[in-house]
Amino acid sequence: LCAASEPPVTGTFVHSTPRAAVEILQNCVLGVDDKGKIAFIEKHQDVVSLSEIWGFETSDIKQLGQYEFLMPGMVDTHIHASQYSYAGTALDLPLLEWLNTYTFPVEAKYKDLDFANDVYTKVVRRTLKNGTTTACYFATIHTDASLLLGELADRFGQRALVGKVCMDCNSYPNVKPVVTPRFAPSCSSSLLSELGEIANNNKLHVQSHISETKEEVELVKTLFPGCKSYTDVYLKHNLLTDRTVMAHGCHLTDEELEIFRETGSAVSHCPNSNISICSGILNVRNVLNHKVKLGLGTDVAGGYSPSMLDAMRRTLDTSKALTIQDPQHKTLSFEEVFRLATLGGSEALSLDDQTGNFVVGKDFDALRVNVCVPDGPIDLFPGEGPKVRQSSY
Amino acid sequence: LCAASEPPVTGTFVHSTPRAAVEILQNCVLGVDDKGKIAFIEKHQDVVSLSEIWGFETSDIKQLGQYEFLMPGMVDTHIHASQYSYAGTALDLPLLEWLNTYTFPVEAKYKDLDFANDVYTKVVRRTLKNGTTTACYFATIHTDASLLLGELADRFGQRALVGKVCMDCNSYPNVKPVVTPRFAPSCSSSLLSELGEIANNNKLHVQSHISETKEEVELVKTLFPGCKSYTDVYLKHNLLTDRTVMAHGCHLTDEELEIFRETGSAVSHCPNSNISICSGILNVRNVLNHKVKLGLGTDVAGGYSPSMLDAMRRTLDTSKALTIQDPQHKTLSFEEVFRLATLGGSEALSLDDQTGNFVVGKDFDALRVNVCVPDGPIDLFPGEGPKVRQSSY
Ligand SMILES: [Zn+2]
Ligand SMILES: [Zn+2]
Repeated sequence: LCAASEPPVTGTFVHSTPRAAVEILQNCVLGVDDKGKIAFIEKHQDVVSLSEIWGFETSDIKQLGQYEFLMPGMVDTHIHASQYSYAGTALDLPLLEWLNTYTFPVEAKYKDLDFANDVYTKVVRRTLKNGTTTACYFATIHTDASLLLGELADRFGQRALVGKVCMDCNSYPNVKPVVTPRFAPSCSSSLLSELGEIANNNKLHVQSHISETKEEVELVKTLFPGCKSYTDVYLKHNLLTDRTVMAHGCHLTDEELEIFRETGSAVSHCPNSNISICSGILNVRNVLNHKVKLGLGTDVAGGYSPSMLDAMRRTLDTSKALTIQDPQHKTLSFEEVFRLATLGGSEALSLDDQTGNFVVGKDFDALRVNVCVPDGPIDLFPGEGPKVRQSSY
Repeated sequence: LCAASEPPVTGTFVHSTPRAAVEILQNCVLGVDDKGKIAFIEKHQDVVSLSEIWGFETSDIKQLGQYEFLMPGMVDTHIHASQYSYAGTALDLPLLEWLNTYTFPVEAKYKDLDFANDVYTKVVRRTLKNGTTTACYFATIHTDASLLLGELADRFGQRALVGKVCMDCNSYPNVKPVVTPRFAPSCSSSLLSELGEIANNNKLHVQSHISETKEEVELVKTLFPGCKSYTDVYLKHNLLTDRTVMAHGCHLTDEELEIFRETGSAVSHCPNSNISICSGILNVRNVLNHKVKLGLGTDVAGGYSPSMLDAMRRTLDTSKALTIQDPQHKTLSFEEVFRLATLGGSEALSLDDQTGNFVVGKDFDALRVNVCVPDGPIDLFPGEGPKVRQSSY
């Protein structure tokens, strides 16, 4: 949804800033330059002088409707494109069995490009439809199919990180390769070292999984006896950089979170998946208190929903479940969760210079939301003004 | 969706029985008599002899599509119709404060019938649209508005229990009054006794709340020092009958569950609400092990969603959260949750002689589901047959 050289838009804008979890800007006007970057966002009362500076006709301005607003596109920091074909099924096994029974057999099918084209087209279109304008994808070990995923994201207009793809074939401006060790238990030390070197030499993004389940943490201890912790495994192999995002982290210790903060690595919180396969519940408040970057992920198909709105709701749910267990726990507010789904996600993927909120110089990357669509999911009642509602579905 | 004198339907039927949490009946044909009751449900191969017995033309049979099935209408065992106007907002306070800040002031508005008509029309249409064909409603203390809710449910074709309504004005066949003490802390002992007498003398349904939060349990102990437990309060006032449904019960003890079983009273499990206002997590498995009747409820607006599909998802989530806390806990299967939303709900409301599954003699009360609608929420992949998927939203 990156527009370019469009007439300015006026109306209500909702986004996050480092200071305000949710900022509602009413009666504002936003203009986009010919590279698709936000050129200005100002109070509407200044529209005449803005029109002179930027050379547009005030009569060309596009007015959002009374029940409409713009919000930043959402960032899915962790989604397995290749698992979309069985989203919503097969949530009856613990992680390691689930991988063997469902994941590995299906991933083998991606050597067939027709199969890959069908699933990858559906996952890109579905996530875009759900408002995900940036996605950090796991694909499979098949280079051709992974390149196809990048091509499809580009064609449908989604900003994407795709792993694994061939490292020297980066031909789409909005698509980047990610160095993608699946997770420590499936990689030898020498493979991890090589990947760390590639990532650092080429300043590439890195994505993987960490501390999703207790069983996995124990397994990693046995496999890497020379490492102090799961985090130490990735640290020792130079895979923790400020372009690294690690999914889950349910069982990370405070010491490990300190390493995340020091290296600038990020956590992708995937609550639907964590609940669905009973992995554990990440204490997001504790991660944020450690000043570790954190975004939200759907983790399809460990998570059954490809919607970031679902990821937002599950983030609130799991935070509240922690409060039920310990009333001293400070529950996340829905405003904070909104920020995690937008600005937080862009920070976690080190793309916050390009997307995440409405700031001059960033890409214009917005969702147009209308809360009053005939036959839509929301019933409005008299006297309701701009405030954030959860959908009625 | 209660049809009458319609031609028989053939295709796939999905429902629950006491033995099978989910039973998928393929190539079956179902006929409805002129009172809207299910007359037969048989294998399609017997259709010729069925047509002779029941006097229909086989050419009139309605064939469900390849991607369609019928399932029973869902039963919402606990929903505050009067709170729908603020569903999705105002989930930032614990229960007792939440009632004072949001609930009580809004309920006062229901003396205005125009206000009531707007909200009640929307809640009945929305829940029907979401697949709730039977709802057990809390209204307000206003008799006219409560009667209006019953009238609206009747007009739009929803089976409803409505409390409080005037006890001697029961003019709609599908709408019944429910004796509705709000909850023990807001009722004197003499009021509870009177209500118990009315319920028993007139064989009426009873609905209320119980043991939603720990604070409330403590409060009831102070208010009713002569009672052994919260359950004992209702028991002593003759409010626990086999037509009683009590919402929440998060903190009921095993001894209290025994009383529920003995009296035939039911629990309405409202997980979205319990999580949203951090009340606690009901151990549904334990309730079922005690052979206590249990249905699901949305508890709008403590729960933010008026959808029973959401109640089903949250039921799974909270069951899995219990498994994360205690790996010995036996997680509910989604098949069991399907049963709770249909057959379980009808049992909880003592309406299982009329609805809940496809059994001869019950009302024909069905949802027609098509999982392959253009632009719909589900992406289908080659080779998928009839099995239950969770929606992609
Ligand atoms: Zn994953
Ligand atoms: Zn309630």
